[in-house]
Amino acid sequence: MINALDRLVTLLAKLPGVGKKSAGRMAYHILDTSPEYARDLAEVLAALHRSIRHCRICGGFTETDPCPICTDSGRDASLLCVVERAQDVRVIDDSREFHGRFHVLGGLIAPLEGIGPEDLSIGRLLSRVGKEGVREVILAMNPTLEGDTTALYLQKLLKDSGAEVTRLASGLPVGGDLEYADRLTLSRSFRGRVKL
Amino acid sequence: MINALDRLVTLLAKLPGVGKKSAGRMAYHILDTSPEYARDLAEVLAALHRSIRHCRICGGFTETDPCPICTDSGRDASLLCVVERAQDVRVIDDSREFHGRFHVLGGLIAPLEGIGPEDLSIGRLLSRVGKEGVREVILAMNPTLEGDTTALYLQKLLKDSGAEVTRLASGLPVGGDLEYADRLTLSRSFRGRVKL
Repeated sequence: MINALDRLVTLLAKLPGVGKKSAGRMAYHILDTSPEYARDLAEVLAALHRSIRHCRICGGFTETDPCPICTDSGRDASLLCVVERAQDVRVIDDSREFHGRFHVLGGLIAPLEGIGPEDLSIGRLLSRVGKEGVREVILAMNPTLEGDTTALYLQKLLKDSGAEVTRLASGLPVGGDLEYADRLTLSRSFRGRVKL
Repeated sequence: MINALDRLVTLLAKLPGVGKKSAGRMAYHILDTSPEYARDLAEVLAALHRSIRHCRICGGFTETDPCPICTDSGRDASLLCVVERAQDVRVIDDSREFHGRFHVLGGLIAPLEGIGPEDLSIGRLLSRVGKEGVREVILAMNPTLEGDTTALYLQKLLKDSGAEVTRLASGLPVGGDLEYADRLTLSRSFRGRVKL
């Protein structure tokens, strides 16, 4: 009925976690808010893909190439954290738990979807491990079937690299409840139990 | 760290129902999607406040003034549905339950927030009821304290207008459960009980 509004709702509903109804609520909120908000959002969106690219070293999102993380001499270059997607870099970096560098694979091995090792930046990972004096490679893929497959594959490839290969612990989430844990998570938390 | 991305996350987090975390997820999704999506969204947003205005008759959002609803001769002009906000028009119209016209108040009477009857389009409502041959005014404000206050106020004003004044039924939501109904809703559903 109102074309501009319908177009906005349709576009917003394509965002992750946004259904038709919340897209409508968002669209009306934008209409009700000052026009500056819509203009600011439009400007940032229009410039987004121009201003952000992938770092040629780690593959993460960045405005400068190489990215600030790869060029930060304060970081421990002997630690390399391997993640699936560029956005995972931010999640881990925000946790302030890790002060090394990153490597973005650009996906996970998923034979059913036709994604093989050759589709990921694995060659570049191997050459980085050799050149950058990496002491430990931390595999930080999600604990899913594809994540496990990829981790196993990388572990084999890196066996003779001289670097230690580790994987993020998997188990009960902090604050979680045994009652709500699925069987696989429970099984992992048993297998990975630690001595106190 | 990545300015363009941080700005986008900050702006998206201002949308209703969107926290910092989902805003981040949305921003990365937009980055991962084709640049056309970001460009389309930017274009719609940039033009939004230019292309959409308030209808001079009902106060609803529209691209043409008066709006398609007010000029639709197929609608029953003797039924007038009074709503709080312009977006409520779409909610009710989408339900296909009502085939009359609308009137947007632009708010509700809320003395604590300093909103009085003079801040709402009540004068225009009264003149419409007189001029447009309205037979029934349906008050469709939310069943809240402010909604009730405003409905009571309008009911008194419209008493001698010749039009019948009704209010949307309030009670248990369809598919709801007595156990989860709050006391007020339960009390309303009792007072508004219907003979079978």
